[in-house]
Amino acid sequence: MIKTDILIIGAGPTGLFTVFEAGLLKLRCHLIDALPQPGGQCSEIYPKKPIYDIPAYPEILAGDLTDKLMEQIKQFEPGFTLGERADTVEKQEDGTFIVTTNKGTKHQAPVVAIAGGLGSFEPRKPPIPNIADFEDKGVEYMIKEPELYRDKDVVIAGGGDSALDWSIFLTDVAKSVTLIHRRNEFRGALDSVDKVQELKNEGKINLITPAEVKGIVGDGKVEGALVEQKDKEPFTIKTDHFIPLFGLAPKLGPIANWGLEIEKNAIKVNNALDYQTNVPGIYAIGDVNTYPGKLKLILCGFHEATLMCQSAYQRIHPDKKYVMKYTTVGGVEGFDGTKKEAPKAVVKAIN
Amino acid sequence: MIKTDILIIGAGPTGLFTVFEAGLLKLRCHLIDALPQPGGQCSEIYPKKPIYDIPAYPEILAGDLTDKLMEQIKQFEPGFTLGERADTVEKQEDGTFIVTTNKGTKHQAPVVAIAGGLGSFEPRKPPIPNIADFEDKGVEYMIKEPELYRDKDVVIAGGGDSALDWSIFLTDVAKSVTLIHRRNEFRGALDSVDKVQELKNEGKINLITPAEVKGIVGDGKVEGALVEQKDKEPFTIKTDHFIPLFGLAPKLGPIANWGLEIEKNAIKVNNALDYQTNVPGIYAIGDVNTYPGKLKLILCGFHEATLMCQSAYQRIHPDKKYVMKYTTVGGVEGFDGTKKEAPKAVVKAIN
Repeated sequence: MIKTDILIIGAGPTGLFTVFEAGLLKLRCHLIDALPQPGGQCSEIYPKKPIYDIPAYPEILAGDLTDKLMEQIKQFEPGFTLGERADTVEKQEDGTFIVTTNKGTKHQAPVVAIAGGLGSFEPRKPPIPNIADFEDKGVEYMIKEPELYRDKDVVIAGGGDSALDWSIFLTDVAKSVTLIHRRNEFRGALDSVDKVQELKNEGKINLITPAEVKGIVGDGKVEGALVEQKDKEPFTIKTDHFIPLFGLAPKLGPIANWGLEIEKNAIKVNNALDYQTNVPGIYAIGDVNTYPGKLKLILCGFHEATLMCQSAYQRIHPDKKYVMKYTTVGGVEGFDGTKKEAPKAVVKAIN
Repeated sequence: MIKTDILIIGAGPTGLFTVFEAGLLKLRCHLIDALPQPGGQCSEIYPKKPIYDIPAYPEILAGDLTDKLMEQIKQFEPGFTLGERADTVEKQEDGTFIVTTNKGTKHQAPVVAIAGGLGSFEPRKPPIPNIADFEDKGVEYMIKEPELYRDKDVVIAGGGDSALDWSIFLTDVAKSVTLIHRRNEFRGALDSVDKVQELKNEGKINLITPAEVKGIVGDGKVEGALVEQKDKEPFTIKTDHFIPLFGLAPKLGPIANWGLEIEKNAIKVNNALDYQTNVPGIYAIGDVNTYPGKLKLILCGFHEATLMCQSAYQRIHPDKKYVMKYTTVGGVEGFDGTKKEAPKAVVKAIN
């Protein structure tokens, strides 16, 4: 059982910044995210795209935003359960909550902060009849650990940035990389398209277009993919892995069944006070919540997280009164023993 | 008469970021601030101090925060009335407001956003009987335009960072710089104290301690300062300017008489919706407002400014419906004709 003060569902920008604000209040955090790395959409969907409305950043790449937030919260030693989806919540008699993931990992905390963005990102799956039989047996919809493909034959399907970028990346890792797309045209960053063309010319990527994978063959694990290419007879290509990268679609998912008031696919919260849901002790912050005037902006999630932490503190320490100190005045004390603080003024005679 | 869409009282971080959010909605802004430069406290009181709780900045100097915000809003061409205090507001029959400063400058807008922080910063004045007679005639409590002191004799009084830093700065501008402090010890950044010692040793700063200025002499303008130094007879030092830098204290000031609901020296707003005050069309955002759970943090001001702009848009364009576009998707179009946007994806065949 993983125990913490604030259990955060979702490791996007809002969830990450919650760790900082909680840390200032000496509360520890643990984050659960279905994606294999922190940063949410910013890391998984558009890491190389610029964001222009983060205050005091005239421009910042979404991936860099994640890096900066990770650096900012490092002192507060957050825990992570990544690549697992928060599935169930059970309220305990002592007022705490136990949250269990789809892989059975259990977490206990007096406060749950849902910072789940648009929901957990679920892969779009191709309509291949027997594909479910091979999931985690050679079929992966998301690349979590590139080393899994070391010296293996790999077939990637898809025509967007993910398919292009992972095909490029895996040429250095896998024994062979085959890229299959139903059109000749790919849609992505110009650099990536040109790089795939170059690797194809060098024989490092085996390109099959326009074509689709229509079946998987194998005995208990993937051994080959059945390919239908235009103007050719269907054929089978030998492979150890089949990785369809057809994009991720967010789904509120199991959280929808947690007994929280839902409106327009988002969780209703009390924005007049502390962004708490109708279940005391469960808060919802960032894009996942809704209230009158709500804007789904990262900067709003930062504010919501901050006010939420104050309320969480009162819930966890009902007898203590927290007096806010400005970081410029009081510095920031990490759980790892480090302290950041402004250079002290000196009092010194001039003679 | 200066006309604009949103008239912002206060050019601190919250006021500055309002320009950006308004700009995304194609609304123009003009800012009034009693200080001689934008940035509020961050620029005037602690420009060299680090802030640790700006999201995605593990550390940023307050002065750099101002610079980044100024860069972010540049595209939206904000207007500034600096060094003037917003004194009165009058509601017009057409629903707009006219705000007049202490120097008589008039501004008209359909929306007023008070982002006044802790209030306008008023200098602490030394108890010299006739000092009021010489204000703006050689006595300045704040340095607004260093060129005013070019080739002049200057007496600065004070023992903190402002007195130290301006004494250092003016040695390159003024004919002579005299620094007077009632103790031998100064309180400030070590670098600054050491630099003043060095300039004193080189004869570039004339240091008189422990001493106080007790009177001003002159006919219509400052011609000298009467100094009482410990263990000496009082003497008069010839000078063109006397600049007492004894710190600034924030005062809500004339805004307190604008008919707004005030609680604990702050303006009550509707935090459940749009941070509007009890006077429709006048909003209060950032440290100047109050509501249940309010935290006086810069990051909260950013969120409040953002929601406030949406409400202002509806007030200004009651018949239009604004559909929010993410900056990452839609880019940012400036009023100066520039456009920032993410590199476009290409659709390109690989053969």
